[in-house]
Amino acid sequence: MLRAPRDIVLEDVPDPRIERPTDAVVRVAAACICGSDLWPYRGIAERGGPERIGHEFIGVVEEVGADVRTLKAGDFVISPFSISDGTCANCHNGVQTSCLNGGWWGSTDSAGGSADAGQGEALRVPLADGTLVALPELPDEAQLPGLLALSDVMGTGHHAALTAGVTAGSTVVVVGDGAVGLCAVIAARRLGAEQIVAMSRHASRQHLAGAFGATDIVAERGDEGVARVKELFGGIGPDAVLECVGTKESMQQAIDSVRPGGIVGYVGVPFGAELPIQQMFSENKGVRGGVASVRSYIPELLPDVLSGAIAPGQVFDLTLPLEQVADGYRAMDQREAVKVLLRP
Amino acid sequence: MLRAPRDIVLEDVPDPRIERPTDAVVRVAAACICGSDLWPYRGIAERGGPERIGHEFIGVVEEVGADVRTLKAGDFVISPFSISDGTCANCHNGVQTSCLNGGWWGSTDSAGGSADAGQGEALRVPLADGTLVALPELPDEAQLPGLLALSDVMGTGHHAALTAGVTAGSTVVVVGDGAVGLCAVIAARRLGAEQIVAMSRHASRQHLAGAFGATDIVAERGDEGVARVKELFGGIGPDAVLECVGTKESMQQAIDSVRPGGIVGYVGVPFGAELPIQQMFSENKGVRGGVASVRSYIPELLPDVLSGAIAPGQVFDLTLPLEQVADGYRAMDQREAVKVLLRP
Repeated sequence: MLRAPRDIVLEDVPDPRIERPTDAVVRVAAACICGSDLWPYRGIAERGGPERIGHEFIGVVEEVGADVRTLKAGDFVISPFSISDGTCANCHNGVQTSCLNGGWWGSTDSAGGSADAGQGEALRVPLADGTLVALPELPDEAQLPGLLALSDVMGTGHHAALTAGVTAGSTVVVVGDGAVGLCAVIAARRLGAEQIVAMSRHASRQHLAGAFGATDIVAERGDEGVARVKELFGGIGPDAVLECVGTKESMQQAIDSVRPGGIVGYVGVPFGAELPIQQMFSENKGVRGGVASVRSYIPELLPDVLSGAIAPGQVFDLTLPLEQVADGYRAMDQREAVKVLLRP
Repeated sequence: MLRAPRDIVLEDVPDPRIERPTDAVVRVAAACICGSDLWPYRGIAERGGPERIGHEFIGVVEEVGADVRTLKAGDFVISPFSISDGTCANCHNGVQTSCLNGGWWGSTDSAGGSADAGQGEALRVPLADGTLVALPELPDEAQLPGLLALSDVMGTGHHAALTAGVTAGSTVVVVGDGAVGLCAVIAARRLGAEQIVAMSRHASRQHLAGAFGATDIVAERGDEGVARVKELFGGIGPDAVLECVGTKESMQQAIDSVRPGGIVGYVGVPFGAELPIQQMFSENKGVRGGVASVRSYIPELLPDVLSGAIAPGQVFDLTLPLEQVADGYRAMDQREAVKVLLRP
């Protein structure tokens, strides 16, 4: 429970139960703290009062409602960070985050019931058939971090790369060395990018970016960073920039860096960012992306996680028992950890 | 010559001549007035003093410089609305409007010489090999309007459709019923769009849009127009919106209309337009486009114009001798003509 800014506590809440025939109850195997959870934690995003928090988890189905068709008790499931029915026009287009009947964890679902939240022992999942993806078999303990990354950061990095049009032979720059930026490096590599520059000033994150497939590291920021990037790409910049921060400065840096005709794929929640339309027009620089439709990417990315072809679970550099959730928030708030995994 | 706002006159200027070995001198067969010429004409875009105007023309090569390799006297050529060398990194990427050595008609070229302008009898073409496209043979008189459309509006409409990702089966809305918007209808149809809505309130333009391949016409604008468009596309909107106006209202209408996950391809020069990044992010609506790299599209579009498969020359609804250039500007300014063709 987030009771007030910087006041996170583990608290008993009523056990979840099936409320509608399309629900499932899931016991959480692992959950994690998202960079976006830090906003209400820091008090930047104001909330109405105490609330359950979290939106990334994996776990085991305990019970399903009468209308659930694709899941049964005992299934191991990955949950994306949004709730979707899987059947509406937007879901059919692969944009489950715009599901006409969907919703968000820690909020109310479309019928007005509490949709719980992921940082806990168990929760009610509305629209379970559309929302959850069941694994073919129970995973090993060692596979959990990689599977958990599919609930948000890996799919979000993939969204940045896809919307920026990254394909075999592309040249790519990734702005942001958080968990999403690091996963964007994995995604760009996986899609066949030829050269991938990670912009990072932190040795441990630079190292991880290199392990994930970055071919170059640029530590400079702002105009100096842009100049260094252009230098690396024939004076004009890369085909694609993956913007994984969301500030005004990082967005402008991304647009300045990409070559004429290139695309900025952005997944950093925009916080004060603005789009310079005159510059975009005269230089033919496109901007695509948004809140990633992670649900649509899980089926595609899951085999590569299970086979070990990609290892996004490495972004978790601190694992804590759920009891120490407050320590996890503190570690991420102070940038002592890239991403915290919580075990109930 | 544009001497001052609303003061266009035909005036004798020195004959063009080869100034550099990469130049050609071209005698104009036909030129036209662009919507963007109306900005300095109306005094909205301020200029420093009297200037030669125009940037869309076709004609016959009279003379070439010593270093020109792909053109010879007598060739019939199409000129795009910008000057480019065809060899730099941006030209190789098909973004000739960002040529590292290029320039604009009616301005100075990269070496500081006057680059003349297209509304006249003849002009000097800098970087002739990179800029001009020669036809395989001399065209018929009846083919001239279609060829002239390749100098700007047809390629610009194509750019809107391409950057918006229009492909076989796409659903498309075109905002703007000027020459570019009408050419965007042609382009969307040519790329295989399944349904194309033209937004237009003018009977003659509605008729032309239908002839070019529009399947539906929506006369409403603003919120009413958006509601009508969503209704036509399953409540969520089309895959692509081609924005061919450039005002704040038209851009917002385009972004409101496109479905979640869709793309707005924009080619209307932005005039006060702003991009609502929070809406774009939460609904995954991308924005691509800009000043069209018409030069890169001429080779692809030319065969379809020569064969008659597409007929963008129909956007010219008024042909005047060059002497009556002032009447042409008046007709376009007062929206009595969609687009004016001038014959020297």
